[in-house]
Amino acid sequence: MVFEERRLAKHPKADIDVFFYPRSVAVVGASPREGSIGRAILENLLASYTGAVYPVNPKYEEILGLRAYPSVSSLPEPPDLTVIAVRARLAPAIAEEAARRGTKGIIVVSGGFAEAGEEGRQLQEMLRRVVDQYGVRIIGPNCIGVYNALSGVDTFFLPRDRMKRPHKGPTAIISQSGAFLASVMDWAAEEGIGISMAVNFGNKLDVDEVDLIDYFADDDNIRTIIVYLEGVKPGRGRALIEASRRATAKGKSIVLLKAGKTQAGAAAAASHTAALAGDYAVYRAAFRQAGIIEVDEPVKLFDMAKALARLTPPRGRRVAIVTNAGGPGVIAADKLAELGLEVPRFSDELQARLREAFPEPRVAVGNPVDLTGDATPEDFEKALKIVVESGEADMVMVLALMQPPTMHIRVADIIADIAWSHKDKPIVAVTIGSEYAKTMRDYLEGRGIPVYDFPDRAANALYALSRCTPCRWPEWAAQACPVDLVSRAEREGEVPGDARERAAGILEAALSRGGGKLLEHEALQLLEAYGLPVPRYCLAKTRDEAGECMRRLGRPAVAKVVSPDIMHKSDVGGVVLGLHSPEDAMRAYDEILSRVSARAPGARVEGVLIQEYLPQGLEVIVGAKRDPSFGPVVLFGLGGVLVEVMRDVSLRVAPITACEALQMLSEIRGSRLLEGYRGSPPRDRAALAGVMLKIARLALDFPQVRELDLNPVMSYERGAAIADARIIVSRG
Amino acid sequence: MVFEERRLAKHPKADIDVFFYPRSVAVVGASPREGSIGRAILENLLASYTGAVYPVNPKYEEILGLRAYPSVSSLPEPPDLTVIAVRARLAPAIAEEAARRGTKGIIVVSGGFAEAGEEGRQLQEMLRRVVDQYGVRIIGPNCIGVYNALSGVDTFFLPRDRMKRPHKGPTAIISQSGAFLASVMDWAAEEGIGISMAVNFGNKLDVDEVDLIDYFADDDNIRTIIVYLEGVKPGRGRALIEASRRATAKGKSIVLLKAGKTQAGAAAAASHTAALAGDYAVYRAAFRQAGIIEVDEPVKLFDMAKALARLTPPRGRRVAIVTNAGGPGVIAADKLAELGLEVPRFSDELQARLREAFPEPRVAVGNPVDLTGDATPEDFEKALKIVVESGEADMVMVLALMQPPTMHIRVADIIADIAWSHKDKPIVAVTIGSEYAKTMRDYLEGRGIPVYDFPDRAANALYALSRCTPCRWPEWAAQACPVDLVSRAEREGEVPGDARERAAGILEAALSRGGGKLLEHEALQLLEAYGLPVPRYCLAKTRDEAGECMRRLGRPAVAKVVSPDIMHKSDVGGVVLGLHSPEDAMRAYDEILSRVSARAPGARVEGVLIQEYLPQGLEVIVGAKRDPSFGPVVLFGLGGVLVEVMRDVSLRVAPITACEALQMLSEIRGSRLLEGYRGSPPRDRAALAGVMLKIARLALDFPQVRELDLNPVMSYERGAAIADARIIVSRG
Repeated sequence: MVFEERRLAKHPKADIDVFFYPRSVAVVGASPREGSIGRAILENLLASYTGAVYPVNPKYEEILGLRAYPSVSSLPEPPDLTVIAVRARLAPAIAEEAARRGTKGIIVVSGGFAEAGEEGRQLQEMLRRVVDQYGVRIIGPNCIGVYNALSGVDTFFLPRDRMKRPHKGPTAIISQSGAFLASVMDWAAEEGIGISMAVNFGNKLDVDEVDLIDYFADDDNIRTIIVYLEGVKPGRGRALIEASRRATAKGKSIVLLKAGKTQAGAAAAASHTAALAGDYAVYRAAFRQAGIIEVDEPVKLFDMAKALARLTPPRGRRVAIVTNAGGPGVIAADKLAELGLEVPRFSDELQARLREAFPEPRVAVGNPVDLTGDATPEDFEKALKIVVESGEADMVMVLALMQPPTMHIRVADIIADIAWSHKDKPIVAVTIGSEYAKTMRDYLEGRGIPVYDFPDRAANALYALSRCTPCRWPEWAAQACPVDLVSRAEREGEVPGDARERAAGILEAALSRGGGKLLEHEALQLLEAYGLPVPRYCLAKTRDEAGECMRRLGRPAVAKVVSPDIMHKSDVGGVVLGLHSPEDAMRAYDEILSRVSARAPGARVEGVLIQEYLPQGLEVIVGAKRDPSFGPVVLFGLGGVLVEVMRDVSLRVAPITACEALQMLSEIRGSRLLEGYRGSPPRDRAALAGVMLKIARLALDFPQVRELDLNPVMSYERGAAIADARIIVSRG
Repeated sequence: MVFEERRLAKHPKADIDVFFYPRSVAVVGASPREGSIGRAILENLLASYTGAVYPVNPKYEEILGLRAYPSVSSLPEPPDLTVIAVRARLAPAIAEEAARRGTKGIIVVSGGFAEAGEEGRQLQEMLRRVVDQYGVRIIGPNCIGVYNALSGVDTFFLPRDRMKRPHKGPTAIISQSGAFLASVMDWAAEEGIGISMAVNFGNKLDVDEVDLIDYFADDDNIRTIIVYLEGVKPGRGRALIEASRRATAKGKSIVLLKAGKTQAGAAAAASHTAALAGDYAVYRAAFRQAGIIEVDEPVKLFDMAKALARLTPPRGRRVAIVTNAGGPGVIAADKLAELGLEVPRFSDELQARLREAFPEPRVAVGNPVDLTGDATPEDFEKALKIVVESGEADMVMVLALMQPPTMHIRVADIIADIAWSHKDKPIVAVTIGSEYAKTMRDYLEGRGIPVYDFPDRAANALYALSRCTPCRWPEWAAQACPVDLVSRAEREGEVPGDARERAAGILEAALSRGGGKLLEHEALQLLEAYGLPVPRYCLAKTRDEAGECMRRLGRPAVAKVVSPDIMHKSDVGGVVLGLHSPEDAMRAYDEILSRVSARAPGARVEGVLIQEYLPQGLEVIVGAKRDPSFGPVVLFGLGGVLVEVMRDVSLRVAPITACEALQMLSEIRGSRLLEGYRGSPPRDRAALAGVMLKIARLALDFPQVRELDLNPVMSYERGAAIADARIIVSRG
């Protein structure tokens, strides 16, 4: 039996495994009533599952030919898995009874919990207490549960004439929406897409996408995990990244569709960072860090999954196109280029070889290789062999349109033979049309070659393949991370040993005042503690101290008012530039105090900060904020107009590596400015990466730091310096 | 007979009409040989065309039961249309013979012309001479020709078992690729998409997409025109825009896929404008101006065409979503928002009305209206009626998933009835799945409601509907064009009466030197002639003249070297800022001359320009370049880093209206800077629009102006001024 073999081969985490490979299943709420959920579940289980099935319903002695039991307690053995399909109000007590009886997993399909008002929320709380008390795992409530074609478990309460079951295949689907899952399963069955496992967890009281990715990571039957996600539970973001990384490290691909992308809430943020790092922007960054391939349309999930489940990742991003249709070949080339893949012009030598095989001038040999509408299957054979063996392509897209009478279904065999004998060069095929095209498609798909009905869909599949994680693609890795800078960035990111201790004191003082925005000198002290490049500064509480400060600094300076009540210092005349002498500083002190008392009468003034004047550099912003799901998030962007108007920023969930910090620098659209531009020098990217690494550390060490903007940071040819900092703190 | 009725109803341009409604057709190269093109064409014509068909082939007396003729000359009457399917070498003589015999249209399906090397190019030239000499129209060569389901004309030489013919419908396809056309026709037949007309013109020696759009504009059988385009012939761009505008003004929709989007060539350009206005960027701007809806994937052509052919454009962009599936509802909302449509939260009143109908708390009434998985067809009926009659939505997307057993096919009738009784609120439907879903889809489509298999595809269709041209949507029009500024912008764009004459003299002088870059003062004179806001200036050829110039200007100034040999004036010390007195000017003159002779020894120096110093404004760029297909193109962008690094520009093909110039200002990503930002004032948009209008005029008046950069233009709260200009001219 397939499922026993598999259990011997591999044994994923026991507590989740019970949902997929239970030895026995109790169905509470089982019913013989036509159209009832209890009957649909029982019927579906009986149709495919070979373990023991126990209907539980006190109203019946027998249901669908099985003995029915009045309660879980009365079952002859503890059921491995208990499915609850009764009214919400009854569910918590039944769940507790089942847990006491020794069930290991419970699927609550019933609705009427947190999604349905206050009473439902309380019922869901009661279910949670069962999890906490008995250590049982729960999927749901308000879900369609689990489908495992390998063991026959099927709690989807949709009759098979409404939701067809797809054939088995190395793909699993995790869906936060039951309706989405049911309808795409039905669609996939029709499209011939193989799916072995599917889970919908509804309100995800307990088991969530993180548990499931973690579980499928260890399942040798699964190569591709499709995820439909609306949101991650608070605090589960980092775990999602880690589970996904583990899965991709084990060779699984994760393709994901995120729904619910509105930016609501971001507008109310106090800092630039919070305003720019909207909820969805953080998800996007996290998916990238996790090695997840995100798509924006459902069909892409399946287009990509099909290729990922069958083909080996390519060694590079060069695509050869072989076609008997010029136009669709051009569409393919456009789409591949848009996705960042290459359709390189073939070398003279390769073109000469192709020309020898195809002397007719109408045949184009540059790439796309356009065999034109007269092409025969044998022409495809010749062209594909030459191209695949040339070493000038890492992947191939074959467009074999079947409308011309010169084409024949044997082209499918030719393509499949070449694909199977050159597995290191993934091949996908495109054919557009009706019957004859579908015959060709079914045949090729049957031989394991992904076929698409339009070139742009095939291009998406090749893109997904080339986004391989872990990657066999050396240039990609090199490009993704400027290796020469990594070790310097790491050094720049090192935090002094006593940073945390020193910072704790500074933060405690501010928090004991009630939190809010740190005063200028507090912010500088905090940053200094973490070894960040702050200008020299000195807090003057009197006119004379201002002069003394200036003497101590011994270099040009600026003066800024320090007040917990003033948000925009310049607006109230609280900043004076161009101090060169102690006298300048004392004059500035007086000016600031008199202007502030005139323009911001009630404001408490803690003093005037005399701060070293920083030479102009390229202005950038480094920020951090806390995301409810993902925790600290680090932001980088170019300063001024570029960040405010163009919103040209990059994000990562902390912690980040030196490599990731450097990637963030090259990810923004304006990254050319960092590389030296129009006579301005290249900037010290390692120093900027160091600032980001330290900020990430600080944000991780202190959850009390809610929002942080270093804006601008002056980026120089050598080093960087923080010209202004705005740090918001609060307890808990 | 359908086609006769139609000819009476409407009579489009006669010369193209002959391809669609010929009274007789000659097929030269007709053949009884199985698998030959000549046989396929004859068979297809005989299957559907009811006019006279004359096979022409000297080798046969009879072909497929018809009398065959040895030549076109020997036919009993001049054939309206002659189809030539013989070897390329024979085609020109046959075309000439047919033209002499009085044929009005020729379709040359044969390949082996310009696409196949030098000999082919010469043969194509011979065909062109036939067009020129006899006034006959030619489609092709190297094409599959014309398909008209209404008259039965079908020159596609693809057997009907390979390329199925779609059912009739109000859509026409114009395709530059024969293979693309053949395969999508076959695909559309399978998908149940109605198409009445289709044309592929291959090498488009004569008839092209412009002629065909123009023809379909007058055809009452056609509502939607699908275009697959690789490129427009040199000089035909403006005609494409005009034909498309005429078609959309007549209520037709044009959806277009452009293939071949590479930016090759743009890199070599001398000016910013030329570098930023790459070939594809110009196409994109032109499509927009033409009212064409551009898509990036083939399937969107058909998704949009389906809705455009059947539904009335909405009055606004508010979409209501009614669904029995939460997840797909969220996906729909995301996609609609991404496309710029709105999914507004319903008013409290409307929500209360919905809540009254659906008291269960699990039903969401905000929008999307989520009826949840238990919904019945009657629930859809209640919800849809309330929503459609509320006045709070302009369009509706219904997601009716058929997997739940509570759903029934009668929901299709319900949706169709509501749609037909509320035609002013276009409704599209989504259903995902296999058999039952397909039954539902086929039924609804049969009743005229567009159905899609995923919500994102339906969202694209609604987007296309809302891009209606001409538009019934008052806010869209208002938003598209700031009405309050239009008349001022028009005034600012008025060109002096003698502009053209004055400019001609200036240009002639430069061109007689051999063209190239205009000298500083020539550029200023040219701009001045068109009434453009240039700073006051004065050319000094001696030290004393520099002093005199300064006295004449009587205000702060800058000095710049004037030399045809110096590209970057600052690099050779050719610029001095901050002149306040005649002495300053004379000193600057000496400095510039000595620095230039040291750093650019061979350079000819024409003098030193003393130019009024302009106060700092918001720096923008206005440019123009000539596109081979579209002629003069105008560009606008923000200055400095924003244009150079972010490539944040907008383009239009000239001529432009004041409204279009103003739209260009708001189209760039950084447009907030023009509206006043962070304490800086709003800028004078009418003045900038005026600069653009005048530049467009100048570029149209003088094809000799190849590239023009005004960079920067200083944009002020009141007015604008051109700080630097770079104009490249050449003859012809």
